[in-house]
Amino acid sequence: MTASAEFPPGPERPAGWLAREQIAAARAQLPILYVDAVPVRVDEAGDVVAVGLLLRVTPEGVMSRALVSGRVMYHERVRDALLRHIEKDLGPVALPQVPASPQPFTVAEYFPTPGVTPYHDPRQHAVSLAYVVPVTGDCRPQQDALDLAWITPEEACTEAVQVEMNGGQGLLLRQAMAWAGRLP
Amino acid sequence: MTASAEFPPGPERPAGWLAREQIAAARAQLPILYVDAVPVRVDEAGDVVAVGLLLRVTPEGVMSRALVSGRVMYHERVRDALLRHIEKDLGPVALPQVPASPQPFTVAEYFPTPGVTPYHDPRQHAVSLAYVVPVTGDCRPQQDALDLAWITPEEACTEAVQVEMNGGQGLLLRQAMAWAGRLP
Amino acid sequence: MTASAEFPPGPERPAGWLAREQIAAARAQLPILYVDAVPVRVDEAGDVVAVGLLLRVTPEGVMSRALVSGRVMYHERVRDALLRHIEKDLGPVALPQVPASPQPFTVAEYFPTPGVTPYHDPRQHAVSLAYVVPVTGDCRPQQDALDLAWITPEEACTEAVQVEMNGGQGLLLRQAMAWAGRLP
Amino acid sequence: MTASAEFPPGPERPAGWLAREQIAAARAQLPILYVDAVPVRVDEAGDVVAVGLLLRVTPEGVMSRALVSGRVMYHERVRDALLRHIEKDLGPVALPQVPASPQPFTVAEYFPTPGVTPYHDPRQHAVSLAYVVPVTGDCRPQQDALDLAWITPEEACTEAVQVEMNGGQGLLLRQAMAWAGRLP
Repeated sequence: MTASAEFPPGPERPAGWLAREQIAAARAQLPILYVDAVPVRVDEAGDVVAVGLLLRVTPEGVMSRALVSGRVMYHERVRDALLRHIEKDLGPVALPQVPASPQPFTVAEYFPTPGVTPYHDPRQHAVSLAYVVPVTGDCRPQQDALDLAWITPEEACTEAVQVEMNGGQGLLLRQAMAWAGRLP
Repeated sequence: MTASAEFPPGPERPAGWLAREQIAAARAQLPILYVDAVPVRVDEAGDVVAVGLLLRVTPEGVMSRALVSGRVMYHERVRDALLRHIEKDLGPVALPQVPASPQPFTVAEYFPTPGVTPYHDPRQHAVSLAYVVPVTGDCRPQQDALDLAWITPEEACTEAVQVEMNGGQGLLLRQAMAWAGRLP
Repeated sequence: MTASAEFPPGPERPAGWLAREQIAAARAQLPILYVDAVPVRVDEAGDVVAVGLLLRVTPEGVMSRALVSGRVMYHERVRDALLRHIEKDLGPVALPQVPASPQPFTVAEYFPTPGVTPYHDPRQHAVSLAYVVPVTGDCRPQQDALDLAWITPEEACTEAVQVEMNGGQGLLLRQAMAWAGRLP
Repeated sequence: MTASAEFPPGPERPAGWLAREQIAAARAQLPILYVDAVPVRVDEAGDVVAVGLLLRVTPEGVMSRALVSGRVMYHERVRDALLRHIEKDLGPVALPQVPASPQPFTVAEYFPTPGVTPYHDPRQHAVSLAYVVPVTGDCRPQQDALDLAWITPEEACTEAVQVEMNGGQGLLLRQAMAWAGRLP
């Protein structure tokens, strides 16, 4: 879950954006609603053939892989938040197929205290609606991401990839693959 | 559920097709596995904006509206059966987005005896995995269908449309709209 | 969605409760995470045979019917919020069977502006994870509810019952019945 | 998937049972509809705390672990088939909580040819609707099962347990745990 997502660069924020101190106060008081998107490539029959993972460097200088993830804003629909975060992370021509139903494949509860659930976010209590989103267009990593790597479902579930994912997103990715029938 | 779907015109049938007497025997002895597809148009955010219904004339000369529906053959994957029936009913360039997950939005149990479930098929006990399938291409009704009508989710749930659907498919369509968040 | 749920009577609040002014500020800035529970009675085979609706009088003196609904608190799991609100509304011996999976049957987005989605809450932007919860014990309406009425799925979807539900909860109830295979 | 389930001992079969040669013929011609149930113990909040696995000896004398599984009969509802197979394998006082919705957590496609899908059944093409079913009563292995072992979700996903499961049921069990939020 990317801290950068909360604060767009310019001084003029669209409606729904919070000042840094406001979001900090809310984060200590309320569960914050998030969306997680697992970007995938599918074949003609809808079968998942590849998973897209963002490559980032953490503030500590460690390489990490991440899903598309971010906050749902005030007065924003969940499906619009999905679109916005996919565009933010994969660029404007990713051509995502946002699911027709709001039913997520799971709900990931990131707690500030480790161990309450398998998901963890030291900054906040975030509750994330998780979706698998096929993308058909050209994806280019944006902002702070170094790269976007397309790997097979099998590779995505290997220990080597899993250890590079933080906060339980490796588990969330495996849950997505289980739901898509592609858990190795 | 279309009787015509079982028997392609030519004498040379692909593997998996049964002779007329074989399928008749099986239908009296086993539940037959079906798929139902609700073809939809979605907007950029994935929201359903239109539903495609096939217009047919029943053997009794009555106009009826139907979903895309048909049997899963021996050694055929569910997603391949979905693709095949969509192509059979909507033509080869419908460009369907078959869901990434095999999890259907519901399972419709068509019983030969009316009243056991809300679904009914006098010919057989059919159990159908039901999916909402966005289509992005050009759809043209094939075979015995007179027309393919695109109507809004609201229209699809009106009494006028519902009475033209048989065997419980009107209910199945409303369940699809409920799952997509588009039940009026 | 019950306003009373936010503020327990006593001055000593458990961790996670917000002061009235804090929740008011948050409500103007962030989507607030809720759960909606549709309490049902099921038969031996799991089929829904009755739905439980709370009968309340609105501040305007109008009778209304409602689902079990309430906010998820900071550092509270979704399944614990479900349990807490069911106990709050149905009493301590309702014996709810909270679902094994966090996957809701739908997500209801209550907007402060009517018409953005089919759900509306003038006080806030609430995003609610909705679950069907079988209860096997003795249910007694608590707090501000006058009664708990058990009605059939068919009755629950009648116009007479639907007009007594507010903010789109009538639709949410019908979506629950659609998912359970009990939409009339 | 248990061969024994097809043939009850007595000569008088209830309606829906097929003679041995009839089922053999059907198996070579049609996908056969199955149900798979993952029996679980849940805590008060619905969280899965244990999984029940049947211990059997294969005809080759090898120990194996299995889910509750079996065919859906002609004119039998899916939820009645679930109940029947759970009673058949876990005994008459297991007190299963069959899900309110027919929506399975996944659909497992067992092909007679290995490698088409991750599931395999050398006898037939079986398509199985898979459900997680909490049981609250006393479970005793019946018929050909030697034992019923309750293990934690973590143990259920270990390599040691997975290798004792056949035909892809180990994968199906992990998919169930992923859906329940209990994949390690």
